[in-house]
Amino acid sequence: MARINADRMLADLDRLRTFGASGNGVMRPSLSAADMESRRWLARRMRDAGLDARIDGVGNVIGRCLRPGPALLIGSHSDTQPRGGWLDGAMGVIYALEIARVLADDPVTAHLAVDTVAWVDEEGTFLGCLGSRSWCGVLGPDDEAAARNAEGVTLRQAIEAAGLSEVPRERLPVDRYIGYLEAHIEQGPYLDEAGFEIGVVTSIVGIRGCTVDFEGEQNHAGTTPMARRRDAGVALFDYAVKIRERFESMAGERTVWTIGRATLEPGAPSIIPGRAQMQLQFRDSNEALLDRMEAAVVALAEEATRAGPVRVSTRRSRRPVVPTYMDADLQRHIAEAAAKHVPGRWMHMPSAAGHDPMVIASHLPCAMLFIPSINGISHDFAEDSRREYIVKGCQVLADAAESILRSATPNA
Amino acid sequence: MARINADRMLADLDRLRTFGASGNGVMRPSLSAADMESRRWLARRMRDAGLDARIDGVGNVIGRCLRPGPALLIGSHSDTQPRGGWLDGAMGVIYALEIARVLADDPVTAHLAVDTVAWVDEEGTFLGCLGSRSWCGVLGPDDEAAARNAEGVTLRQAIEAAGLSEVPRERLPVDRYIGYLEAHIEQGPYLDEAGFEIGVVTSIVGIRGCTVDFEGEQNHAGTTPMARRRDAGVALFDYAVKIRERFESMAGERTVWTIGRATLEPGAPSIIPGRAQMQLQFRDSNEALLDRMEAAVVALAEEATRAGPVRVSTRRSRRPVVPTYMDADLQRHIAEAAAKHVPGRWMHMPSAAGHDPMVIASHLPCAMLFIPSINGISHDFAEDSRREYIVKGCQVLADAAESILRSATPNA
Repeated sequence: MARINADRMLADLDRLRTFGASGNGVMRPSLSAADMESRRWLARRMRDAGLDARIDGVGNVIGRCLRPGPALLIGSHSDTQPRGGWLDGAMGVIYALEIARVLADDPVTAHLAVDTVAWVDEEGTFLGCLGSRSWCGVLGPDDEAAARNAEGVTLRQAIEAAGLSEVPRERLPVDRYIGYLEAHIEQGPYLDEAGFEIGVVTSIVGIRGCTVDFEGEQNHAGTTPMARRRDAGVALFDYAVKIRERFESMAGERTVWTIGRATLEPGAPSIIPGRAQMQLQFRDSNEALLDRMEAAVVALAEEATRAGPVRVSTRRSRRPVVPTYMDADLQRHIAEAAAKHVPGRWMHMPSAAGHDPMVIASHLPCAMLFIPSINGISHDFAEDSRREYIVKGCQVLADAAESILRSATPNA
Repeated sequence: MARINADRMLADLDRLRTFGASGNGVMRPSLSAADMESRRWLARRMRDAGLDARIDGVGNVIGRCLRPGPALLIGSHSDTQPRGGWLDGAMGVIYALEIARVLADDPVTAHLAVDTVAWVDEEGTFLGCLGSRSWCGVLGPDDEAAARNAEGVTLRQAIEAAGLSEVPRERLPVDRYIGYLEAHIEQGPYLDEAGFEIGVVTSIVGIRGCTVDFEGEQNHAGTTPMARRRDAGVALFDYAVKIRERFESMAGERTVWTIGRATLEPGAPSIIPGRAQMQLQFRDSNEALLDRMEAAVVALAEEATRAGPVRVSTRRSRRPVVPTYMDADLQRHIAEAAAKHVPGRWMHMPSAAGHDPMVIASHLPCAMLFIPSINGISHDFAEDSRREYIVKGCQVLADAAESILRSATPNA
């Protein structure tokens, strides 16, 4: 198998970190000056690697090798959260660059076709997974027209400011790719706590969100006897405790749920709350489990309303995100490479955070590889991993890419 | 016993209602133009009744009879909530006027001394129980200097605008009064639900308020496993349910408690709350029970902190209001009059709302009489009672006043 050049790969990763650097972290929101500068640098490095690289009309950097394929697309996003970590996204882009180089450099693998990509705005500064949506042809004109950042700048203005208004947008070419690979830090604590070095992603979890409304009767906190009250706050507290009991009884090992917001109205110490509301979110890879959880949310509301004295109703607070499954065959190649390089220190695992493969998997087989996040920290300047993990992850993905391409490519 | 003139009393009550009238309700916050106009009218009506009436330097209307005493002071407040009911306060003031008149008119009782009062700002537009505090000499200069209404007008400005800056403030005269009587609508549902007509108030409940703070760890709602979370919101919901169980196990028949406010921070659907806070208030006539409840608040916080993973701490959110006990002898006179006029349809009961006797009872024996509030509604335009209850209540208080004064006054 081709050996990656660890020093070269780490040097590029350290260079990419300098665009928008702030302490240990990075501030490189998509289409910002720092982001565009980094994209121009990435395009140059792809060209240095012999790729035909261009920045497309939304900001994606796509480096296409000159071989006909079947090809693998490898990459990640290179934009960051407003105050992001240095590895989130960036690492997967540099892995792709290094894998394209090392396979091209080795005569044994030089016939294999690896294209590279740095997606734009996975983090949703304007519109989450903007780059991959555009590339897959699923970016609605209304969504695009409505997209703006927290400062109110529209996506259209940002594209114009980046000088991309007249640049064509790249689209997924027909019949070129056998799959898409992406490496990422885990952004959770599982690998770090287990002392494992590689995660082979099985799926990206689905997300459901519900608003639960409680409608009671506002009244005087002194003169209203307890038995006469219809306290919306009391009903909310009950509901919160009971939904936890139900979710605990049905949850899988990785299921998570969160009440991130709860309000009582009018919210004064001497007034019995007449209305209350909570936001309940839950995530899992198992769509059937998400269905059962949502059914429990509704059933508990109906039971509470029947029992009285407060009326409880629920509705979805967001469009559901369905779980995305990684391709089993691509997973197997990554797992075999992991078993070779870090035997006993890798695992299959779902991703609890969202990634571009949520969009791409409907169009191409996808697979993802995780390396550990120290203490599970992400979306924060403190985000980090160990250099040996970074190097190991790149070699595992390179081996997997080579074996995927070898199994799909006629002998040259 | 002297018979009240029901028509005269109701006509005065209807006239007082016109000052600041709005639909079925009244908008007559203290020291407003409508309030001052009503006070000047009240002073005239007191003078018509043969009383030496004056508006003092904070706005109290005090009508002093010319007899030496021992005297009873009878009255209530005549200011209202911003959007108040027509009986709250006003009724007790007109009862006093009628009782002073009817006792003076009857040769058998004409030697008995009844003074009348319409306190200012019981409702706390500027400073709760302002008038009775000033009269009892317990109005701190700092409190007075800091007092302002919701629009930011200071008490001092309002007194000046009312033309009272140079007017002397009346003070509780030494050795004149054997007690203070006040009639009021109940502001709760107990009399109305029982079908009773008179409540003889035993005490005004004490109030304690606590702030409970929950300090956990803010984190990502997707990537943080349930077992690793330190969710401040979950801790708050648990605490709310447990404190209710504890309070239910120790509560008396009339104990009430309320969580009127609860907040989670930062309050976003995808973020595990790192901090949370609730406001917990509880009321009872029994100071020892309030002590035990407050001890339970603290103990439950300590238990929760020990059990982890969220730190729970408590502090008082307000100066406690201690329960105020009505004078047993004065109560007995009211009870005897009630037993005569509404046999089997009166009860002893605490007041769950605050009243000027909370201030006065440290200086004079006090007693209060309640009549029913329809559906327990108060502090609302919908506040009301039945005219027959209003008349009955006045006669009972008149009888009680006569018998109190007879038992204390040497035969003339």
